[in-house]
Amino acid sequence: MDLAFVLYPEFTALDLVGPLDVLGHQGLVGQEEVRVHFVAATREPVRSDVGLTVTPSTTFDELARADVVVVPGGDVRQALAGGQVSAWLREVHPTATWTTSVCTGSILLADAGLLAGRPATTHWAFRDALAQRGAVISTDRVVRDGKVITAAGVSAGIDMALTLVELIWGERRAQATQLFIEYDPQPPHDAGAVEKAPAEVVDGVLAALGRMA
Amino acid sequence: MDLAFVLYPEFTALDLVGPLDVLGHQGLVGQEEVRVHFVAATREPVRSDVGLTVTPSTTFDELARADVVVVPGGDVRQALAGGQVSAWLREVHPTATWTTSVCTGSILLADAGLLAGRPATTHWAFRDALAQRGAVISTDRVVRDGKVITAAGVSAGIDMALTLVELIWGERRAQATQLFIEYDPQPPHDAGAVEKAPAEVVDGVLAALGRMA
Repeated sequence: MDLAFVLYPEFTALDLVGPLDVLGHQGLVGQEEVRVHFVAATREPVRSDVGLTVTPSTTFDELARADVVVVPGGDVRQALAGGQVSAWLREVHPTATWTTSVCTGSILLADAGLLAGRPATTHWAFRDALAQRGAVISTDRVVRDGKVITAAGVSAGIDMALTLVELIWGERRAQATQLFIEYDPQPPHDAGAVEKAPAEVVDGVLAALGRMA
Repeated sequence: MDLAFVLYPEFTALDLVGPLDVLGHQGLVGQEEVRVHFVAATREPVRSDVGLTVTPSTTFDELARADVVVVPGGDVRQALAGGQVSAWLREVHPTATWTTSVCTGSILLADAGLLAGRPATTHWAFRDALAQRGAVISTDRVVRDGKVITAAGVSAGIDMALTLVELIWGERRAQATQLFIEYDPQPPHDAGAVEKAPAEVVDGVLAALGRMA
């Protein structure tokens, strides 16, 4: 099974690595033969939004198919402008059993034309941006529509990937994987959803994201 | 503020990247001046246990101090045998305001002599291994002892880092960071702790980890 993790400048590392360590450890947890690919426009190292610098293992030109595609979010503006991620997604999506995204990665799926009129989710602050590209916004944390699965912001990729493990390998494997990564979350606050966080906290994060633009 | 993230061969990427995206985004979320360092024995790219290949930004020889040190877990056998991580931890720990670990990263802290007789935690399957190195095992998900904070397995690094954000910058910032990464966890099962998972699932994961040795 070929797992393709997409890299582009200014991606958010946790969007990538949550699903990576859930799916990529199936060799250990389930003795599955999984091949992990990190695919980018070139083999030059790609820098995340906070400086994690990752070396691609292959390129969009070289990798023509994958069983599972994972598109992380981040600051997608360069990737949208370049067009290479979207072009590759259009090419590889028909070959994939599952095409997935985390956070604003769904904006790249939408740009590739994969979400037109389809239910999908993204980071809570970018729901309008995704809707403007033709998707029907869901506020669920993990949204499955046929073979496309989109996840909400950043950390939601872990829940998405556990859902995918269950779809592919069943309930027991999902439980084993959850135990393997000791995913018994205990956030210090209950502020992780826009519907739950104090209004001033929401405003502060929106202002911070505005400074990014 | 200098944040040092330790790299060594066969580290588990999520152990590193959970804290990275919580702490490293304080520049965006809180307009803090945080400098993120990825420190390893050399500047050669370092490969995680499932193949994420990360380029260090500095080396143990070059980075003599840090405000926050984060030691990820993973398969720590090479790092223990080499001794360079432990030697650097002994050197840098006195300079740090916070020294932290995720998962089996605490075994490296213990090997450096930082946990002798002190409460600490690790991945549930490695509690004995940590106890054998002199720590007093806690089964809490995040354990603070003075300026040392240890976290349980893999995904617990996110909770640890949010706790640290609150200790450094306060409750509102912790909430904003949680909202920024949309950390409203919804695992498909309640199997993330050894006390909660079905016995056959626990046995399966222990067998898988045994194959690793």
